[in-house]
Amino acid sequence: MTPAAAAEWIGDASGVFRVLDQTKLPAAEILLDLTTAAGVVDALRRLAIRGAPLIGVAGAYGVHLGIRDLPDDPVAFARGFAAVRRQVAEARPTAVNLGWAVERMRLAARPEASPFEQKRAVFAAALRLHEDDRVSCARMASFGVPLVRPGERLLTYCNSGALATAGEGTALGVILAAARAGRVSKVYSSETRPLLQGARLTMWELTRAGVPAVLVCDNTVGELFRRGEVDRVFVGADRIAANGDVANKIGTYMVATMAAAHGKPFHVVAPASTFDLSTPDGSGIPIEERAPEEVLEFAGLRTAPAGASAFAPAFDVTPARLIASIVTDRGVIGPVGPSEIRAVLG
Amino acid sequence: MTPAAAAEWIGDASGVFRVLDQTKLPAAEILLDLTTAAGVVDALRRLAIRGAPLIGVAGAYGVHLGIRDLPDDPVAFARGFAAVRRQVAEARPTAVNLGWAVERMRLAARPEASPFEQKRAVFAAALRLHEDDRVSCARMASFGVPLVRPGERLLTYCNSGALATAGEGTALGVILAAARAGRVSKVYSSETRPLLQGARLTMWELTRAGVPAVLVCDNTVGELFRRGEVDRVFVGADRIAANGDVANKIGTYMVATMAAAHGKPFHVVAPASTFDLSTPDGSGIPIEERAPEEVLEFAGLRTAPAGASAFAPAFDVTPARLIASIVTDRGVIGPVGPSEIRAVLG
Repeated sequence: MTPAAAAEWIGDASGVFRVLDQTKLPAAEILLDLTTAAGVVDALRRLAIRGAPLIGVAGAYGVHLGIRDLPDDPVAFARGFAAVRRQVAEARPTAVNLGWAVERMRLAARPEASPFEQKRAVFAAALRLHEDDRVSCARMASFGVPLVRPGERLLTYCNSGALATAGEGTALGVILAAARAGRVSKVYSSETRPLLQGARLTMWELTRAGVPAVLVCDNTVGELFRRGEVDRVFVGADRIAANGDVANKIGTYMVATMAAAHGKPFHVVAPASTFDLSTPDGSGIPIEERAPEEVLEFAGLRTAPAGASAFAPAFDVTPARLIASIVTDRGVIGPVGPSEIRAVLG
Repeated sequence: MTPAAAAEWIGDASGVFRVLDQTKLPAAEILLDLTTAAGVVDALRRLAIRGAPLIGVAGAYGVHLGIRDLPDDPVAFARGFAAVRRQVAEARPTAVNLGWAVERMRLAARPEASPFEQKRAVFAAALRLHEDDRVSCARMASFGVPLVRPGERLLTYCNSGALATAGEGTALGVILAAARAGRVSKVYSSETRPLLQGARLTMWELTRAGVPAVLVCDNTVGELFRRGEVDRVFVGADRIAANGDVANKIGTYMVATMAAAHGKPFHVVAPASTFDLSTPDGSGIPIEERAPEEVLEFAGLRTAPAGASAFAPAFDVTPARLIASIVTDRGVIGPVGPSEIRAVLG
């Protein structure tokens, strides 16, 4: 990543949350200075900020921005704090990191403390959560790199890099570290319709890092496997259920199925904060539906005929049986099952 | 289909081959009057005319257009006729209908006849091939409709309708006839990147026919199956090998794999002219690669970063084992294997 990080906090508690507007990449690098919870929610909803870990970071700062100007009357503050937490947590439904981050802010602010102290504690907790995610990325990379054998050709899906985290990424972080270790001969990036995060964001990160990268349409993954062009897959995750079922960007399930059909390992890379042990399996994960226009149009250009309908789920669920291992910031889980997950996450 | 057919011959032998420029749909209905073999080749290459059966029809008229003004000297004519056949046959490599149509034109023109008579015979053969494809579509529909049970939700891929044939289509022809028979509750159309034939063309045909249709991104097919939203799949084909392996639009293999993973039948619909019995299996089918720009750009808008590479095969191969049956204009082949194919095709 460049000096223009995907997200940074600028200044002290009265500062701004500065984010790169990812909807404009790679054509333009536009920075947004967010100063309110509503601004953060809007940026999350329109995917200016995205990627499960970064959604968590944004959620934490969003809570801080929402409460820093609340009145110092304890009752009014408690009511306002709860409303802000709800507002932020509901910005997007699938990535569990958002609810997790908001909950971390709640726990940081001991209710018996004064509103002033609670505000200070929340800001400190947001900074800490942000820094923790940086460290977490580095740990996932260190656990993931040994999985890659020298010369391998990797496939990734959507974007799970510096634009999705506070560090160098989850899945893409592993890939970039493996490339620096000289183990990667090529990376295929699947474009990830409808919003093309694979084309716009992952290709941008790989190209800037000097890693040999090839873009394909999502429907080309099967042909890559048939030609023996892919040795291994790394993807990120938005929510992982207690049994290891993984919700990730729509299309991940098809990639995992193709990898399994060709006997190639499929790895998920995600921090502990992406696990939702209160959800037994993938059937309980809420799947966000996006506006049909995201499929019916492209960059404002209508591609489908007038009156056409579309179905636009933002995520799908990959069953645990298709996943060779899950690389976390606490170690590698593999084979993937409830007891293996509990053993690593504690 | 409307009065503006995908392709028609206008006038007598000195007339024009009028085609709807499919690259402009659904935004505009632009007709092209083609009068030379080079014009037909260009229209084929840039996909203004597409769809395996219609490629065959275009190839036949292309040969006629290329030879109608050749000199009447027998030696010069024979040389020119051979050159035109080569020129037209090489326009696109994967759809076997093109080579098949060109060969039919060669066979129609008995070499002992005068150039004048050969020209007349080729024109008559082109008109006949065009009419045969209309009849062939109707026959495929009649064989395919009984496969659909009342109330089923169907999935199709790319475009195999009136825009791909001289009739109502191959796979889409079956779907439209089944819808008229009251058997179809919904049709999912997968958009088919990079050129969006599913969004632009199939949705256009389904919408005009009043069939309830829903557009999805190609990466959403797996989620549809996971939700139990698809009962049956119909797709067309560009070339079918002697063992039943099917080359069709890139992505078809992934759709077939997802159907198999969920126990849903996957049907291919194609006329006898799409079979290439001289190719033992799918590994021998040439796969056209398109320009990387088709993936790196969208409607002239660059989506990937500068300097990015892309891989753009136009087709993939679905192995026979994933195909429940192949609906042909001579009957239904299923299960799919070399002897079953020979039994139906003779």
